[in-house]
Amino acid sequence: MGSEQDPILQAGRGLFLTFEGPDGSGKTTQVRLLAKWLRTRDLEPVLLRQPGSTALGERIRGILVDSRGEAAVGAIAPLAELALMFADRAQQIAEIIRPALAEGRVVVCDRYTDSSEAYQGAGRGLGSDRTLAVHRAICDDFQPDLTVLLLPDADLALERARKRNEQFQREHGGANENRFEAEGEAFFRRVHAAYAAIAEREPERVLRLGDGSVEEIAAAIQKSVEAKLRISSGS
Amino acid sequence: MGSEQDPILQAGRGLFLTFEGPDGSGKTTQVRLLAKWLRTRDLEPVLLRQPGSTALGERIRGILVDSRGEAAVGAIAPLAELALMFADRAQQIAEIIRPALAEGRVVVCDRYTDSSEAYQGAGRGLGSDRTLAVHRAICDDFQPDLTVLLLPDADLALERARKRNEQFQREHGGANENRFEAEGEAFFRRVHAAYAAIAEREPERVLRLGDGSVEEIAAAIQKSVEAKLRISSGS
Repeated sequence: MGSEQDPILQAGRGLFLTFEGPDGSGKTTQVRLLAKWLRTRDLEPVLLRQPGSTALGERIRGILVDSRGEAAVGAIAPLAELALMFADRAQQIAEIIRPALAEGRVVVCDRYTDSSEAYQGAGRGLGSDRTLAVHRAICDDFQPDLTVLLLPDADLALERARKRNEQFQREHGGANENRFEAEGEAFFRRVHAAYAAIAEREPERVLRLGDGSVEEIAAAIQKSVEAKLRISSGS
Repeated sequence: MGSEQDPILQAGRGLFLTFEGPDGSGKTTQVRLLAKWLRTRDLEPVLLRQPGSTALGERIRGILVDSRGEAAVGAIAPLAELALMFADRAQQIAEIIRPALAEGRVVVCDRYTDSSEAYQGAGRGLGSDRTLAVHRAICDDFQPDLTVLLLPDADLALERARKRNEQFQREHGGANENRFEAEGEAFFRRVHAAYAAIAEREPERVLRLGDGSVEEIAAAIQKSVEAKLRISSGS
Protein backbone atom coordinates (compact mmCIF):
# COMPACT_ATOMS: atom_id res chain seq x y z
CA MET A 1 0.00 0.00 0.00
CA GLY A 2 2.84 2.36 0.83
CA SER A 3 3.91 2.81 -2.78
CA GLU A 4 0.41 3.88 -3.86
CA GLN A 5 0.18 6.63 -1.29
CA ASP A 6 0.21 10.34 -1.61
CA PRO A 7 3.73 11.52 -0.68
CA ILE A 8 2.07 14.03 1.62
CA LEU A 9 1.62 11.28 4.21
CA GLN A 10 4.74 9.24 3.63
CA ALA A 11 6.76 11.11 6.19
CA GLY A 12 3.76 11.24 8.54
CA ARG A 13 2.18 8.98 11.05
CA GLY A 14 -1.15 8.70 9.34
CA LEU A 15 -4.23 10.67 10.24
CA PHE A 16 -7.09 9.63 12.49
CA LEU A 17 -10.38 11.38 11.72
CA THR A 18 -13.74 10.81 13.38
CA PHE A 19 -17.21 11.98 12.42
CA GLU A 20 -19.72 12.74 15.14
CA GLY A 21 -23.22 14.09 15.45
CA PRO A 22 -26.82 12.98 15.97
CA ASP A 23 -28.39 10.64 13.46
CA GLY A 24 -29.65 12.65 10.52
CA SER A 25 -26.91 15.24 10.79
CA GLY A 26 -25.37 14.20 7.47
CA LYS A 27 -22.39 12.13 8.65
CA THR A 28 -22.81 9.43 6.01
CA THR A 29 -22.92 11.93 3.18
CA GLN A 30 -19.91 13.87 4.45
CA VAL A 31 -17.84 10.73 5.07
CA ARG A 32 -18.54 9.70 1.48
CA LEU A 33 -17.57 13.12 0.10
CA LEU A 34 -14.39 13.23 2.16
CA ALA A 35 -13.42 9.72 1.04
CA LYS A 36 -13.96 10.77 -2.58
CA TRP A 37 -11.81 13.87 -2.07
CA LEU A 38 -9.06 11.84 -0.38
CA ARG A 39 -9.05 9.42 -3.32
CA THR A 40 -8.51 12.27 -5.75
CA ARG A 41 -5.29 12.80 -3.83
CA ASP A 42 -4.41 9.11 -4.03
CA LEU A 43 -5.16 8.61 -0.35
CA GLU A 44 -7.38 5.55 0.03
CA PRO A 45 -8.96 6.00 3.44
CA VAL A 46 -9.72 3.22 5.91
CA LEU A 47 -13.45 3.65 6.61
CA LEU A 48 -14.84 2.33 9.89
CA ARG A 49 -18.12 2.41 11.75
CA GLN A 50 -18.64 2.01 15.48
CA PRO A 51 -19.85 -0.37 16.61
CA GLY A 52 -18.69 -2.73 13.88
CA SER A 53 -15.94 -3.16 11.28
CA THR A 54 -14.23 -6.07 13.09
CA ALA A 55 -15.57 -9.57 13.67
CA LEU A 56 -15.99 -8.73 17.35
CA GLY A 57 -17.56 -5.36 16.54
CA GLU A 58 -20.13 -6.92 14.24
CA ARG A 59 -21.02 -9.46 16.96
CA ILE A 60 -21.46 -6.56 19.39
CA ARG A 61 -23.57 -4.69 16.85
CA GLY A 62 -25.68 -7.83 16.48
CA ILE A 63 -26.24 -7.98 20.23
CA LEU A 64 -27.34 -4.34 20.31
CA VAL A 65 -29.73 -4.88 17.39
CA ASP A 66 -31.19 -8.01 19.01
CA SER A 67 -31.68 -6.21 22.32
CA ARG A 68 -34.19 -3.95 20.57
CA GLY A 69 -36.22 -6.73 18.99
CA GLU A 70 -38.05 -9.66 20.51
CA ALA A 71 -34.90 -11.77 20.15
CA ALA A 72 -33.00 -13.72 22.77
CA VAL A 73 -31.18 -10.75 24.26
CA GLY A 74 -33.35 -8.69 26.58
CA ALA A 75 -32.87 -5.08 27.53
CA ILE A 76 -29.22 -4.21 27.99
CA ALA A 77 -28.32 -2.28 31.13
CA PRO A 78 -26.90 1.18 30.33
CA LEU A 79 -23.55 0.42 32.01
CA ALA A 80 -23.29 -2.86 30.10
CA GLU A 81 -24.01 -0.98 26.89
CA LEU A 82 -21.25 1.51 27.72
CA ALA A 83 -18.77 -1.32 28.29
CA LEU A 84 -19.81 -3.02 25.02
CA MET A 85 -19.21 0.18 23.06
CA PHE A 86 -15.71 0.39 24.51
CA ALA A 87 -15.01 -3.30 23.85
CA ASP A 88 -15.80 -2.61 20.21
CA ARG A 89 -13.60 0.48 20.22
CA ALA A 90 -10.63 -1.27 21.87
CA GLN A 91 -10.79 -4.01 19.25
CA GLN A 92 -10.86 -1.52 16.37
CA ILE A 93 -7.93 0.40 17.82
CA ALA A 94 -5.80 -2.74 18.22
CA GLU A 95 -6.86 -4.56 15.07
CA ILE A 96 -7.30 -1.74 12.54
CA ILE A 97 -6.69 1.85 13.64
CA ARG A 98 -3.18 1.66 15.12
CA PRO A 99 -1.80 -0.66 12.40
CA ALA A 100 -3.31 1.55 9.66
CA LEU A 101 -1.88 4.72 11.19
CA ALA A 102 1.51 3.04 11.51
CA GLU A 103 1.37 2.48 7.73
CA GLY A 104 0.64 6.17 7.24
CA ARG A 105 -3.01 5.63 6.26
CA VAL A 106 -5.91 8.02 6.79
CA VAL A 107 -8.49 6.40 9.09
CA VAL A 108 -12.02 7.78 9.05
CA CYS A 109 -14.30 6.53 11.79
CA ASP A 110 -18.07 7.05 11.85
CA ARG A 111 -18.55 7.61 15.61
CA TYR A 112 -16.00 7.20 18.40
CA THR A 113 -15.73 8.06 22.11
CA ASP A 114 -17.61 11.35 21.75
CA SER A 115 -20.65 9.25 20.81
CA SER A 116 -20.37 7.34 24.07
CA GLU A 117 -20.05 10.58 25.99
CA ALA A 118 -23.10 12.04 24.21
CA TYR A 119 -25.38 8.98 24.08
CA GLN A 120 -24.46 6.87 27.09
CA GLY A 121 -22.93 9.66 29.17
CA ALA A 122 -25.53 12.39 28.61
CA GLY A 123 -28.43 10.58 26.91
CA ARG A 124 -28.59 7.72 29.41
CA GLY A 125 -27.30 9.85 32.25
CA LEU A 126 -24.14 7.88 33.03
CA GLY A 127 -22.07 11.05 33.03
CA SER A 128 -19.06 12.40 31.14
CA ASP A 129 -16.60 11.67 33.94
CA ARG A 130 -17.51 8.00 33.98
CA THR A 131 -17.40 7.72 30.21
CA LEU A 132 -14.02 9.41 29.98
CA ALA A 133 -12.67 7.22 32.81
CA VAL A 134 -13.56 4.16 30.72
CA HIS A 135 -12.00 5.79 27.66
CA ARG A 136 -8.74 6.33 29.55
CA ALA A 137 -8.72 2.75 30.84
CA ILE A 138 -9.91 0.87 27.74
CA CYS A 139 -8.67 3.11 24.89
CA ASP A 140 -5.53 4.43 26.61
CA ASP A 141 -7.07 7.88 26.09
CA PHE A 142 -6.40 7.55 22.34
CA GLN A 143 -8.08 10.47 20.56
CA PRO A 144 -8.41 11.43 16.89
CA ASP A 145 -6.30 14.10 15.24
CA LEU A 146 -9.51 15.74 14.09
CA THR A 147 -13.16 15.22 14.91
CA VAL A 148 -15.78 16.61 12.54
CA LEU A 149 -18.89 17.30 14.58
CA LEU A 150 -21.96 17.81 12.43
CA LEU A 151 -24.26 19.60 14.80
CA PRO A 152 -26.95 21.76 13.33
CA ASP A 153 -29.14 23.87 15.56
CA ALA A 154 -30.97 21.59 18.02
CA ASP A 155 -34.49 22.32 16.74
CA LEU A 156 -33.48 21.74 13.14
CA ALA A 157 -31.68 18.49 14.03
CA LEU A 158 -34.67 17.28 16.03
CA GLU A 159 -36.98 17.93 13.11
CA ARG A 160 -34.70 15.95 10.78
CA ALA A 161 -34.45 13.06 13.23
CA ARG A 162 -38.24 12.94 13.52
CA LYS A 163 -38.63 12.82 9.76
CA ARG A 164 -36.08 10.04 9.43
CA ASN A 165 -37.85 8.14 12.13
CA GLU A 166 -41.29 8.56 10.54
CA GLN A 167 -39.95 7.54 7.16
CA PHE A 168 -38.33 4.46 8.65
CA GLN A 169 -41.56 3.50 10.37
CA ARG A 170 -43.52 3.93 7.15
CA GLU A 171 -41.06 1.78 5.25
CA HIS A 172 -40.37 -0.90 7.85
CA GLY A 173 -43.63 -1.02 9.76
CA GLY A 174 -43.02 0.18 13.27
CA ALA A 175 -39.66 -1.20 14.31
CA ASN A 176 -37.03 1.51 14.30
CA GLU A 177 -33.49 0.48 13.46
CA ASN A 178 -32.18 3.42 15.39
CA ARG A 179 -31.98 2.83 19.10
CA PHE A 180 -31.34 6.46 19.82
CA GLU A 181 -34.07 8.12 17.83
CA ALA A 182 -36.63 6.11 19.72
CA GLU A 183 -35.73 7.75 23.00
CA GLY A 184 -37.62 10.92 22.41
CA GLU A 185 -36.95 14.59 22.46
CA ALA A 186 -35.50 14.95 25.97
CA PHE A 187 -32.88 12.31 25.19
CA PHE A 188 -32.10 13.97 21.89
CA ARG A 189 -31.61 17.35 23.53
CA ARG A 190 -29.24 15.89 26.15
CA VAL A 191 -27.18 14.31 23.37
CA HIS A 192 -27.11 17.57 21.43
CA ALA A 193 -26.04 19.60 24.47
CA ALA A 194 -23.28 17.10 25.28
CA TYR A 195 -21.89 17.34 21.75
CA ALA A 196 -21.93 21.14 21.95
CA ALA A 197 -20.10 20.97 25.30
CA ILE A 198 -17.42 18.65 23.89
CA ALA A 199 -16.79 21.08 21.02
CA GLU A 200 -16.42 23.95 23.48
CA ARG A 201 -14.13 21.94 25.73
CA GLU A 202 -11.80 20.72 22.96
CA PRO A 203 -11.76 23.32 20.18
CA GLU A 204 -8.35 22.14 18.94
CA ARG A 205 -9.61 18.66 18.18
CA VAL A 206 -13.27 19.25 17.35
CA LEU A 207 -14.46 21.12 14.27
CA ARG A 208 -18.12 21.92 14.75
CA LEU A 209 -20.11 22.35 11.55
CA GLY A 210 -23.73 21.91 10.65
CA ASP A 211 -25.06 25.12 9.19
CA GLY A 212 -24.66 25.55 5.47
CA SER A 213 -25.16 23.46 2.35
CA VAL A 214 -23.72 19.98 1.88
CA GLU A 215 -21.10 21.48 -0.43
CA GLU A 216 -20.15 24.23 2.01
CA ILE A 217 -19.73 21.76 4.84
CA ALA A 218 -17.70 19.40 2.64
CA ALA A 219 -15.40 22.27 1.66
CA ALA A 220 -14.87 23.24 5.32
CA ILE A 221 -14.02 19.63 6.19
CA GLN A 222 -11.56 19.34 3.30
CA LYS A 223 -9.84 22.55 4.40
CA SER A 224 -9.35 21.26 7.95
CA VAL A 225 -8.23 17.81 6.81
CA GLU A 226 -5.78 19.38 4.39
CA ALA A 227 -4.25 21.38 7.25
CA LYS A 228 -3.96 18.24 9.38
CA LEU A 229 -2.36 16.33 6.51
CA ARG A 230 0.31 19.02 6.25
CA ILE A 231 0.98 18.91 10.00
CA SER A 232 1.07 15.11 9.89
CA SER A 233 3.58 15.03 7.04
CA GLY A 234 5.65 17.77 8.60
CA SER A 235 5.52 19.92 5.48
CA MET B 1 -39.95 -16.32 47.56
CA GLY B 2 -39.91 -14.20 50.71
CA SER B 3 -42.15 -16.54 52.64
CA GLU B 4 -39.86 -19.51 52.02
CA GLN B 5 -36.80 -17.75 53.34
CA ASP B 6 -34.83 -18.31 56.45
CA PRO B 7 -35.87 -15.60 58.93
CA ILE B 8 -32.18 -14.92 59.44
CA LEU B 9 -32.15 -12.86 56.24
CA GLN B 10 -35.61 -11.34 56.34
CA ALA B 11 -34.44 -8.23 58.15
CA GLY B 12 -31.27 -8.09 56.07
CA ARG B 13 -30.27 -6.82 52.70
CA GLY B 14 -29.26 -10.16 51.26
CA LEU B 15 -25.73 -11.42 50.99
CA PHE B 16 -23.40 -11.21 48.00
CA LEU B 17 -20.72 -13.91 47.91
CA THR B 18 -18.13 -14.53 45.23
CA PHE B 19 -15.78 -17.44 44.63
CA GLU B 20 -12.38 -16.81 43.14
CA GLY B 21 -9.26 -18.75 42.30
CA PRO B 22 -7.42 -20.35 39.40
CA ASP B 23 -9.13 -23.08 37.42
CA GLY B 24 -8.72 -26.37 39.22
CA SER B 25 -8.75 -24.77 42.67
CA GLY B 26 -12.04 -26.43 43.59
CA LYS B 27 -14.49 -23.53 43.13
CA THR B 28 -17.18 -25.63 41.52
CA THR B 29 -17.12 -28.22 44.30
CA GLN B 30 -17.18 -25.60 47.05
CA VAL B 31 -19.98 -23.58 45.44
CA ARG B 32 -22.02 -26.79 45.29
CA LEU B 33 -21.33 -27.64 48.93
CA LEU B 34 -22.14 -24.12 50.07
CA ALA B 35 -25.40 -24.13 48.10
CA LYS B 36 -26.34 -27.45 49.70
CA TRP B 37 -25.57 -26.07 53.16
CA LEU B 38 -27.58 -22.89 52.48
CA ARG B 39 -30.55 -25.02 51.39
CA THR B 40 -30.46 -26.93 54.68
CA ARG B 41 -31.13 -23.53 56.23
CA ASP B 42 -33.96 -22.84 53.78
CA LEU B 43 -31.88 -20.29 51.93
CA GLU B 44 -32.10 -20.99 48.22
CA PRO B 45 -29.09 -19.22 46.73
CA VAL B 46 -28.98 -17.44 43.39
CA LEU B 47 -26.05 -19.10 41.59
CA LEU B 48 -24.25 -17.19 38.85
CA ARG B 49 -21.22 -17.63 36.67
CA GLN B 50 -19.18 -14.91 35.00
CA PRO B 51 -19.24 -14.50 32.14
CA GLY B 52 -22.78 -15.80 31.62
CA SER B 53 -26.08 -16.20 33.46
CA THR B 54 -27.90 -13.48 31.49
CA ALA B 55 -28.84 -13.48 27.81
CA LEU B 56 -26.17 -10.85 27.21
CA GLY B 57 -23.65 -12.75 29.33
CA GLU B 58 -24.16 -15.96 27.40
CA ARG B 59 -23.70 -14.07 24.13
CA ILE B 60 -20.45 -12.65 25.51
CA ARG B 61 -19.37 -16.11 26.65
CA GLY B 62 -20.10 -17.35 23.12
CA ILE B 63 -17.90 -14.63 21.63
CA LEU B 64 -15.03 -15.57 23.96
CA VAL B 65 -15.39 -19.27 23.12
CA ASP B 66 -15.48 -18.54 19.37
CA SER B 67 -12.39 -16.34 19.60
CA ARG B 68 -10.42 -19.43 20.61
CA GLY B 69 -11.64 -21.63 17.77
CA GLU B 70 -11.43 -21.20 14.02
CA ALA B 71 -14.81 -19.45 14.06
CA ALA B 72 -15.78 -16.03 12.76
CA VAL B 73 -14.37 -14.06 15.68
CA GLY B 74 -10.62 -13.65 15.52
CA ALA B 75 -8.28 -12.94 18.41
CA ILE B 76 -9.79 -10.51 20.87
CA ALA B 77 -7.57 -7.64 21.98
CA PRO B 78 -6.83 -7.76 25.73
CA LEU B 79 -8.47 -4.39 26.38
CA ALA B 80 -11.56 -5.46 24.45
CA GLU B 81 -11.68 -8.64 26.52
CA LEU B 82 -11.48 -6.57 29.70
CA ALA B 83 -14.39 -4.40 28.55
CA LEU B 84 -16.44 -7.47 27.59
CA MET B 85 -15.95 -8.98 31.04
CA PHE B 86 -17.24 -5.79 32.62
CA ALA B 87 -20.18 -5.55 30.21
CA ASP B 88 -21.20 -9.01 31.41
CA ARG B 89 -20.73 -7.99 35.03
CA ALA B 90 -22.74 -4.76 34.69
CA GLN B 91 -25.61 -6.70 33.16
CA GLN B 92 -25.60 -9.29 35.96
CA ILE B 93 -25.52 -6.57 38.60
CA ALA B 94 -28.48 -4.70 37.08
CA GLU B 95 -30.54 -7.69 35.98
CA ILE B 96 -29.92 -10.24 38.75
CA ILE B 97 -27.62 -9.32 41.62
CA ARG B 98 -29.12 -6.06 42.87
CA PRO B 99 -32.75 -7.22 42.51
CA ALA B 100 -31.96 -10.51 44.31
CA LEU B 101 -30.17 -8.73 47.15
CA ALA B 102 -33.09 -6.32 47.47
CA GLU B 103 -35.30 -9.38 48.04
CA GLY B 104 -32.94 -10.55 50.78
CA ARG B 105 -31.50 -13.43 48.72
CA VAL B 106 -28.04 -14.93 48.97
CA VAL B 107 -26.21 -14.46 45.67
CA VAL B 108 -23.23 -16.70 44.95
CA CYS B 109 -21.13 -15.73 41.96
CA ASP B 110 -18.46 -17.96 40.40
CA ARG B 111 -15.87 -15.26 39.51
CA TYR B 112 -16.23 -11.49 39.69
CA THR B 113 -13.96 -8.43 39.45
CA ASP B 114 -11.05 -10.14 41.22
CA SER B 115 -10.90 -12.49 38.23
CA SER B 116 -10.49 -9.52 35.89
CA GLU B 117 -7.78 -8.09 38.11
CA ALA B 118 -5.97 -11.46 38.20
CA TYR B 119 -6.45 -12.62 34.59
CA GLN B 120 -6.68 -9.47 32.49
CA GLY B 121 -4.90 -7.14 34.94
CA ALA B 122 -1.97 -9.39 35.93
CA GLY B 123 -2.13 -12.28 33.47
CA ARG B 124 -2.40 -10.11 30.36
CA GLY B 125 -0.47 -7.26 31.93
CA LEU B 126 -3.19 -4.59 31.76
CA GLY B 127 -2.60 -3.66 35.40
CA SER B 128 -4.65 -3.55 38.58
CA ASP B 129 -5.14 0.22 38.48
CA ARG B 130 -6.70 0.07 35.05
CA THR B 131 -8.92 -2.88 35.97
CA LEU B 132 -10.13 -1.22 39.15
CA ALA B 133 -10.79 2.04 37.28
CA VAL B 134 -13.11 0.13 34.96
CA HIS B 135 -14.70 -1.56 37.97
CA ARG B 136 -15.44 1.81 39.56
CA ALA B 137 -16.88 3.19 36.32
CA ILE B 138 -18.85 0.18 35.08
CA CYS B 139 -19.80 -1.58 38.36
CA ASP B 140 -20.06 1.52 40.55
CA ASP B 141 -17.35 -0.12 42.67
CA PHE B 142 -19.90 -2.69 43.83
CA GLN B 143 -18.09 -5.40 45.82
CA PRO B 144 -19.23 -8.63 47.49
CA ASP B 145 -19.82 -8.96 51.21
CA LEU B 146 -17.46 -11.91 51.19
CA THR B 147 -15.09 -13.36 48.63
CA VAL B 148 -13.90 -16.93 49.07
CA LEU B 149 -10.51 -17.19 47.41
CA LEU B 150 -9.42 -20.77 46.83
CA LEU B 151 -5.71 -20.40 46.38
CA PRO B 152 -3.56 -23.40 47.15
CA ASP B 153 0.21 -23.08 47.03
CA ALA B 154 1.28 -21.97 43.54
CA ASP B 155 3.19 -25.14 42.64
CA LEU B 156 0.36 -27.37 43.74
CA ALA B 157 -2.20 -25.31 41.83
CA LEU B 158 -0.05 -25.33 38.71
CA GLU B 159 0.23 -29.10 38.87
CA ARG B 160 -3.55 -29.45 39.14
CA ALA B 161 -4.14 -27.07 36.24
CA ARG B 162 -1.73 -29.05 34.08
CA LYS B 163 -3.52 -32.29 34.86
CA ARG B 164 -6.91 -30.77 34.05
CA ASN B 165 -5.53 -29.46 30.82
CA GLU B 166 -4.00 -32.80 29.81
CA GLN B 167 -7.18 -34.62 30.67
CA PHE B 168 -9.22 -32.19 28.61
CA GLN B 169 -6.91 -32.60 25.66
CA ARG B 170 -7.14 -36.40 25.89
CA GLU B 171 -10.91 -36.26 26.00
CA HIS B 172 -11.57 -33.50 23.49
CA GLY B 173 -8.66 -33.86 21.12
CA GLY B 174 -6.46 -30.81 21.38
CA ALA B 175 -8.82 -27.86 21.75
CA ASN B 176 -8.83 -26.58 25.30
CA GLU B 177 -12.05 -25.11 26.60
CA ASN B 178 -10.12 -23.05 29.05
CA ARG B 179 -8.66 -19.90 27.60
CA PHE B 180 -6.53 -19.29 30.62
CA GLU B 181 -4.88 -22.65 31.10
CA ALA B 182 -3.51 -22.42 27.60
CA GLU B 183 -1.36 -19.43 28.47
CA GLY B 184 1.38 -21.34 30.20
CA GLU B 185 3.14 -21.27 33.49
CA ALA B 186 4.30 -17.63 33.55
CA PHE B 187 0.73 -16.46 33.01
CA PHE B 188 -0.50 -18.81 35.72
CA ARG B 189 2.04 -17.51 38.21
CA ARG B 190 1.10 -13.89 37.52
CA VAL B 191 -2.54 -14.75 38.13
CA HIS B 192 -1.69 -16.56 41.35
CA ALA B 193 0.43 -13.69 42.65
CA ALA B 194 -2.32 -11.18 41.86
CA TYR B 195 -4.88 -13.22 43.79
CA ALA B 196 -2.52 -13.43 46.76
CA ALA B 197 -2.00 -9.66 46.62
CA ILE B 198 -5.76 -9.00 46.55
CA ALA B 199 -6.22 -11.15 49.67
CA GLU B 200 -3.47 -9.21 51.46
CA ARG B 201 -4.90 -5.87 50.38
CA GLU B 202 -8.49 -6.61 51.42
CA PRO B 203 -8.46 -9.05 54.34
CA GLU B 204 -11.91 -7.93 55.53
CA ARG B 205 -13.57 -8.96 52.29
CA VAL B 206 -11.37 -11.83 51.09
CA LEU B 207 -11.16 -15.18 52.87
CA ARG B 208 -8.18 -17.02 51.45
CA LEU B 209 -8.36 -20.81 51.70
CA GLY B 210 -6.85 -23.63 49.73
CA ASP B 211 -4.90 -25.88 52.04
CA GLY B 212 -6.84 -28.67 53.66
CA SER B 213 -9.37 -31.26 52.61
CA VAL B 214 -12.56 -30.47 50.71
CA GLU B 215 -14.50 -30.90 53.96
CA GLU B 216 -12.21 -28.65 55.97
CA ILE B 217 -12.43 -25.92 53.36
CA ALA B 218 -16.23 -26.28 53.19
CA ALA B 219 -16.47 -25.95 56.98
CA ALA B 220 -14.32 -22.81 56.95
CA ILE B 221 -16.51 -21.26 54.24
CA GLN B 222 -19.70 -22.09 56.14
CA LYS B 223 -18.32 -20.50 59.28
CA SER B 224 -17.53 -17.25 57.48
CA VAL B 225 -20.84 -17.19 55.63
CA GLU B 226 -22.70 -17.83 58.87
CA ALA B 227 -20.99 -14.81 60.45
CA LYS B 228 -21.89 -12.65 57.46
CA LEU B 229 -25.51 -13.84 57.58
CA ARG B 230 -25.71 -12.70 61.21
CA ILE B 231 -24.26 -9.29 60.38
CA SER B 232 -26.58 -8.98 57.39
CA SER B 233 -29.68 -9.79 59.43
CA GLY B 234 -28.55 -7.54 62.25
CA SER B 235 -28.84 -10.34 64.83
